[in-house]
Order: sequence, then structure tokens, then C-alpha cells
Amino acid sequence: MAQRRDPSHEIREICRTAARIFYEKGYDGASMQDIADAVGLTKAGLYHHVGSKDRLLFEIMNYGMDILDEAVVSRVLQIADPTERLRQTIIGHIDLVVRTRNIEITVILHENRSLKGELRDKINTRKQAYIHLIEQTIADVQARTPAPPLLSPKLAAFALLGMINWLYQWYRRDGPVQQEELAQAYGDFFFRGLLGRS
Amino acid sequence: MAQRRDPSHEIREICRTAARIFYEKGYDGASMQDIADAVGLTKAGLYHHVGSKDRLLFEIMNYGMDILDEAVVSRVLQIADPTERLRQTIIGHIDLVVRTRNIEITVILHENRSLKGELRDKINTRKQAYIHLIEQTIADVQARTPAPPLLSPKLAAFALLGMINWLYQWYRRDGPVQQEELAQAYGDFFFRGLLGRS
Repeated sequence: MAQRRDPSHEIREICRTAARIFYEKGYDGASMQDIADAVGLTKAGLYHHVGSKDRLLFEIMNYGMDILDEAVVSRVLQIADPTERLRQTIIGHIDLVVRTRNIEITVILHENRSLKGELRDKINTRKQAYIHLIEQTIADVQARTPAPPLLSPKLAAFALLGMINWLYQWYRRDGPVQQEELAQAYGDFFFRGLLGRS
Repeated sequence: MAQRRDPSHEIREICRTAARIFYEKGYDGASMQDIADAVGLTKAGLYHHVGSKDRLLFEIMNYGMDILDEAVVSRVLQIADPTERLRQTIIGHIDLVVRTRNIEITVILHENRSLKGELRDKINTRKQAYIHLIEQTIADVQARTPAPPLLSPKLAAFALLGMINWLYQWYRRDGPVQQEELAQAYGDFFFRGLLGRS
């Protein structure tokens, strides 16, 4: 049980459970008592670990951004070809949004207005870095194309983020469309929209 | 002041104010007392008008769907050419999402999980009718194209809804991109993605 005493591990366990409760009840609807009960701590013990409800939401979102960095960003940065880098970013980001175990990602998507002040700025800085990576990759893809760009990298990046992030609202993994089929179809659709050809 | 005594007008006034408070505080974070204070009623008076907090959220969403029907659906249904019908649906839907006065639409987008049971089913039925209209229009556009469809109407419809609905998260009307430019760029992008050409 030595692992349980690692503070960062314990915080992550609390984050995972709290993310589920925020997802079910909303940030404003969930109380610290609800979360303390779910993680098996007293309310005082929970405050000792996370400081405040704001701070807990920040920790969840920061953890969600860690997952995004580990599962998507760190992998695609090694890909030299921008088209393949963009394709793998699409596949990885779709995977994060549709896999229910990454509920931290859903909290980032849904509770973006609940965080305030400095903590919100910190998360927004991390989000901006990711958006910038996508914009830059799109610009790199466009630069390899002889024709002039059809769409600004910024508008294209937000169209892509909208298509993918909106999946949490409607896509069900046990529905008729397999995740691989979805990722292929949305990747192809995006490249056609960006370049006017597949 | 006779107009103020029209019950449906009064409900709509309450809806508009309550929508703003739900937007600012979240559905779970806003109390009926907050809303009563904002509309100048006692809490008992507010309950008399709207029945319950659930019912109030339903009325806001139902009003939002009325606005969508009036501003988009009723206009595009008269357009015989499916390509033009789809283009005008995109322009009209973008307009609803980015105009801040249509905060009822934002509540529909953001609080979709807060409504429960029969009231939720009623709103979902109206949403489904709109999604079906978009899917059918996409299928009509594809049927006019000699090449086989590149994407199912359903996946294309949700890609479009994601691109447009996500605008409420990032697009600012006072930013560098004009609404007309945005609507043109996203319309062109969608048709290229759908058909492989502009």
C-alpha cells in the first residue's frame, strides 16, 4: 500500500472521483461533502488534501491537460510529416473525448466557465498551447500545398476542435459507428475541408 | 401596459432573465430566489408563474427551440434547392449561436444534461427533428452529386453541429473575424468536406 501514500497519486485518485461527481451533478450542484463521502474522507480531510473546491476543479482540469499532453501531444510532436502529425492528433483527440474513462476531459470541456481568476488563466494558457500546436500543424500542412490556403489556420483549428469536442454530447461507443470508422471519416472530412481534396 | 398581462409574454420575459442567470451561475448554482429577485417577483410569485425550477429550464429551452424554428427552420423549408437550403441553415444557425441576445440557445447547448425525465424527452424530440432536417438536407445535396457519398449524412450533420455549436465557447463578435466572414468560411469548409470540392 506504499503507493497510496504518494501524495500526487492520492490527489489523482481524488481528482478522478471528484470529476465523476462534477460530471453527474455539475460543478455548482456538487458539494465538498458529496466528494468527501465518495472518496472516503471527512470533509476536513478533503480540504486538507485539495485546499478548496476551486482548487479541486483546477487540479482535475490540470490532470486532464496532463492526460492530453501524455496521450496526444508528446506522441505527435515526434512525427515529422505535418499531414501525418495532424491525422494522429485527430485520432488521439477523438480517443480522449469518446473514452468514458477520461472523464477529466469532459469536465474541462463542460465546466470551462466555472473556474475563475488565476487558476482559470493557468488552464487557459495550457489550452492555448494546444490550440497553437494545432494551428501551427495546419499551417505546415497548408504550406506543403501548392494552392493558396482556403481557410485561416485559426478558423480551421476551431472547426476541428468543435467537431471533436462536440462528440461528448452525442457519440456513444456502444452505438452503430465504431470509433475507428468515426476517426477515419472525420479525419478525411477535415482534410477535404482544409485542402479541397482528400 | 396591457401587453405585460399577456401570460405567454410574461413567461418569455421571465425566461430571458432566468436564462441569463443560468448562464452566469449554472443551472445547479442558480437559486429560484436569485431568479425571483432579478425578475422582481417574490419566490412564491415566481413559482406561481413557472411551477418549478425544472419547468423553468424546460420553458427556456422550449423558447430557444421556438427561436430556432422561427429564425432558421421556417425560412429554409421554403428553399427548394438543397445546397442553398443547407447554406442558409448554416448561416442562420451560426447567427443564433453567436448573437449574445440568444442566450436561450446557449442554455440549450450547455445545460442539456440538467433537464430530466419527460421534460427532457420533449426537448430532445424537438432537437431530433432539427437534426433530422439537417441530415435530410445533406442527403438531398449528396443525391444531386454524381459521385457516391463520402460521409454518412448523420456523421456530417454532427460534424456541422459541432463546428457551429462550439462557437459559443470561443467566438467573440468584437474579435478580428466578422460574422459574415466566419459563416462564409465555415459554409465553404463544410461543403468541401462533404463533397470534396467547393
